[in-house]
Amino acid sequence: AFLIIWLSQLCYNWEKHILTFSFILLCCLNVNSFVARSKTCGELRSAHIGQEVTLCGWIQYKRHEQFVVLRDFQGLTQILIPQVEVSAIENCFCSFLMQTGDIEVKAETAEVLNYCKKLPFEIKDFTKKTEALRMQYRYLDIRSIQMQYNLRLRSQVVMRMREYLCNCYDFVDVETPTLFKKTPGGAKEFVVPSREAGKFYSLPQSPQQFKQLLMVGGLDRYFQVARCYRDEGSKPDRQPEFTQIDIEMSFVDQDGILALIEGMLQYSWPKEKGLIKIPFPSITYDEALSTYGTDKPDTRFGMKIIDVSHILRNVDVAFLQNSLSEPHGTVKAICIPQGAVSEAICGNLISCLVLKPDGRMKSPLGKFLSEEQKSELIRTVEANMEDVVLLAAGQHKKVCSALGKLRLKSAELLEAKGLLLRDPSAFHFLWVVEFPLFLPKEKNPEELEAAHHPFTAPHPLDEHLLYSDPSQVRGQHYDLVLNGNEIGGGSIRIHNAKQQRFILEKVLKEDTELLFHLLEALESGAPPHGGIALGLDRLICLLVGGSSIRDVIAFPKSFRGRDLMSNAPDYVDPQELEPYHVQVTWPLTEAKARTN
Amino acid sequence: AFLIIWLSQLCYNWEKHILTFSFILLCCLNVNSFVARSKTCGELRSAHIGQEVTLCGWIQYKRHEQFVVLRDFQGLTQILIPQVEVSAIENCFCSFLMQTGDIEVKAETAEVLNYCKKLPFEIKDFTKKTEALRMQYRYLDIRSIQMQYNLRLRSQVVMRMREYLCNCYDFVDVETPTLFKKTPGGAKEFVVPSREAGKFYSLPQSPQQFKQLLMVGGLDRYFQVARCYRDEGSKPDRQPEFTQIDIEMSFVDQDGILALIEGMLQYSWPKEKGLIKIPFPSITYDEALSTYGTDKPDTRFGMKIIDVSHILRNVDVAFLQNSLSEPHGTVKAICIPQGAVSEAICGNLISCLVLKPDGRMKSPLGKFLSEEQKSELIRTVEANMEDVVLLAAGQHKKVCSALGKLRLKSAELLEAKGLLLRDPSAFHFLWVVEFPLFLPKEKNPEELEAAHHPFTAPHPLDEHLLYSDPSQVRGQHYDLVLNGNEIGGGSIRIHNAKQQRFILEKVLKEDTELLFHLLEALESGAPPHGGIALGLDRLICLLVGGSSIRDVIAFPKSFRGRDLMSNAPDYVDPQELEPYHVQVTWPLTEAKARTN
Repeated sequence: AFLIIWLSQLCYNWEKHILTFSFILLCCLNVNSFVARSKTCGELRSAHIGQEVTLCGWIQYKRHEQFVVLRDFQGLTQILIPQVEVSAIENCFCSFLMQTGDIEVKAETAEVLNYCKKLPFEIKDFTKKTEALRMQYRYLDIRSIQMQYNLRLRSQVVMRMREYLCNCYDFVDVETPTLFKKTPGGAKEFVVPSREAGKFYSLPQSPQQFKQLLMVGGLDRYFQVARCYRDEGSKPDRQPEFTQIDIEMSFVDQDGILALIEGMLQYSWPKEKGLIKIPFPSITYDEALSTYGTDKPDTRFGMKIIDVSHILRNVDVAFLQNSLSEPHGTVKAICIPQGAVSEAICGNLISCLVLKPDGRMKSPLGKFLSEEQKSELIRTVEANMEDVVLLAAGQHKKVCSALGKLRLKSAELLEAKGLLLRDPSAFHFLWVVEFPLFLPKEKNPEELEAAHHPFTAPHPLDEHLLYSDPSQVRGQHYDLVLNGNEIGGGSIRIHNAKQQRFILEKVLKEDTELLFHLLEALESGAPPHGGIALGLDRLICLLVGGSSIRDVIAFPKSFRGRDLMSNAPDYVDPQELEPYHVQVTWPLTEAKARTN
Repeated sequence: AFLIIWLSQLCYNWEKHILTFSFILLCCLNVNSFVARSKTCGELRSAHIGQEVTLCGWIQYKRHEQFVVLRDFQGLTQILIPQVEVSAIENCFCSFLMQTGDIEVKAETAEVLNYCKKLPFEIKDFTKKTEALRMQYRYLDIRSIQMQYNLRLRSQVVMRMREYLCNCYDFVDVETPTLFKKTPGGAKEFVVPSREAGKFYSLPQSPQQFKQLLMVGGLDRYFQVARCYRDEGSKPDRQPEFTQIDIEMSFVDQDGILALIEGMLQYSWPKEKGLIKIPFPSITYDEALSTYGTDKPDTRFGMKIIDVSHILRNVDVAFLQNSLSEPHGTVKAICIPQGAVSEAICGNLISCLVLKPDGRMKSPLGKFLSEEQKSELIRTVEANMEDVVLLAAGQHKKVCSALGKLRLKSAELLEAKGLLLRDPSAFHFLWVVEFPLFLPKEKNPEELEAAHHPFTAPHPLDEHLLYSDPSQVRGQHYDLVLNGNEIGGGSIRIHNAKQQRFILEKVLKEDTELLFHLLEALESGAPPHGGIALGLDRLICLLVGGSSIRDVIAFPKSFRGRDLMSNAPDYVDPQELEPYHVQVTWPLTEAKARTN
């Protein structure tokens, strides 16, 4: 909160003789090659005293024409401007805070390279600015220490991943097209008009088909840092274009993919973020749902969901009895340590139970429970004094899901009260496996849709169920979860054309015409194969502790898909649409406004 | 031409005991990790005899159920299938040709993993197949040795470039958006309709604006392997999406960029392609035009353009006199060694001159020249016996351009006759510098347009001419040429907002509204900066000696922009266009056909 007063002129070519010494540049880490400077503004130490240097940077601070503090992406350096009559220079008040504080550079020559108008906000990290302003002037926002750190870390992590895949394990980096054909059910795909009337490309949501075709092509191990597109309107924290680490291998099984990714993350993890232990723990989808009420559990803290049906089965309370008599009826609980939980968060399904400091249980349920039942309940949920136990009764999935949400909400409330539940520097990876292959359609539960995508291979033990009871088939799908966020997912794919055709046509009732080429490819000696995709934006965001993936993307779109800097998307001249044989269909109100 | 009979079943899990030995895997180069195989099909040697191995691959050849040859991306291995009654196995006729010929693997167990229908073409490199067929079944075409080599080499070269930029020189890999705003004059940009009526994104032709904004943002050194889009209809050997190595640096001058790129190419050049010498030679635009008649000279051979005006100035031939009296009038020549050049290639401007074995000159011009003029001409163009000298007279640029084309055409003719002019394994890099900053518009030569793009900085020595005679200003632009192909270009950019505004508004008469954000950024303390972009597809194509960039792209589009495998672009349901507020405007004939 000290040096950064205003950003004015851009300066350059400060040179100076100081005192002694020389120093060794790290070979092959030379940020000063090819450019006008000989050192960065964050680099000089007492060891450099005596050297003549050339610095380039922005003026961070200027005082009485006697010294300036020059800034670049690496730090700050104080520059002394010799006076005709050398007056006593005041003590440099900044040196104790700057890493270069041991030295100052005496200017011999200086050149002003550019001027700067008054900026819409100051380049200091504590300056409060709205996100809209940051987005509008993104090129200024990127000057902040945090954005520089985020973008540089992202670059380094991706580079390490590439080394691991390409140099250590012979993966082939293959670029796949983004102007492609609509995929079945690709309702979220942007269309791109072509010069052939009525014909459109689609911007694919992932290189899924291409990576599988590369395996059919014998490429063996593919990866790509792939740009993907998804038009989701205004979902928060989504971007119309995003990046995934896209991987596919031949002759591989689930364990192979999991080990590969664990190794890759360990290899590429930044040192300053601590070591990560591999292998990662693994949990089945069913277990994740029963224990955490979600398929992306945050395992940084406990408060697991515990089944207490057996204790309450004979308690004479209508909502318990009704719930337990339903199919899949159950009563479950979570125990919130020291938890003063607001009643507001308890929904219909829920009953509260507070364990008083004197050991007494306070709960509307209390009078219906025997002492034995009470103590068994307390023992089962491992409640301590002053804990709150939340009970929910009803159908298994609903109960788990409700308690899962309450678990997260409670964690937030506890943390707001100052209890450190989740270490912000901890990274808890978790594999979630054995997902169902199909799920009932939300709008028409009689029909099935692919839980992930229609290319996922069934679990070998469940293959026979495909033809009798497909809803019971587990898929060879795996999700990677980090601190309660899904950061990747993948599967072993179907390599048998007949099976793929059966699933598309008979189970999913999809039109296979759009996938004709893929089915034909599977018939051409497709090897067994599988892969995964990691969401790079989210992974890096978690790594740097960002509040949104916009913090790790150089030029993100707003939540409405706008680029606030350039004002894209924008109107275009109807004439420019002519070669593409499209015209705008104006909504009635706008059409009127435009003709007026 | 031997083993590859047909591709049938996909096999896997062949296992076998052989004889002795062990061997050391290259650490961190482990193509067999995470998968079912323990060795590739190209890897086994006599040193492995005795080991038990698991191989996965495609059956390349099968004989009498006694042995199969298994293929993967690395090679072939012969598998012996033990017979119940071991008959005398015939000598393996393939071993002398296969790198794994010293061994054969005795199968212990085998599993057929997939079946293969009859393929549209055989997977052998000498099979002639049309490009359309290759494109339609690209996943089979990729199995060829050549495509495997091309894609793998591409991956490795790019990885080495990344190491150089990221690890050696601290460049930051930043991903920039592809859903952006139309750029001024961006007639070749695809549009992408958004959900806001009438508003469109554009797919940019390069990250030009973003890379400059990153420099304003203090990122210092940026690179990206960037996907770019250009809708050029049916230009041959262009792709609607292509890839460039995109680089930008702050506080850099032209020499800095040139040295960086030379170092990068040297560092990333595949060993098997020989060493490349740096620094690359450099030539000015004017010199390139005068000497080679083009701004992308193929310097692998001579036959330079030579000015002979001074010799022919006083020769009494009308076309010479007329030409020399024009402004910029000139007479120039190229000397074609042993050149029987078809008269058909000589246009209006040209006169031929053949030096006979007896030293006599045969030419329609002959009778007008004195003996002294003849011998001076022969000496100047360094003609030897049986050489052909082509003469052209007229306006400087036209003469050079015509002779430049004849030079290339003659080289082709000579090579067709069996003369090796251009070593196919030689790589001649050349920088072309000092381009004009502006060129007269083709349609309206009174107006100027940017020779490359409007952000190129003027040559420091010519800056004053901007305001008086802009057509004379040279730009700080540089092109990189390899064997006569432009493979990259870049410039030092304008960092002064006033100068940028003057050029856009006064010289180029562009609407600056579309660039408002960039001009505003330049006013915010933009550092001096510059950069370059290399066309990756073309570079790799030249490296592998491909005949088209389609040979180094996994899934290219046809020259009409079609994906022949998936049949993209394709018709879409009008309903799917509704959220984007566009409808198709059918050309009249098609509209009729569709209503019938």
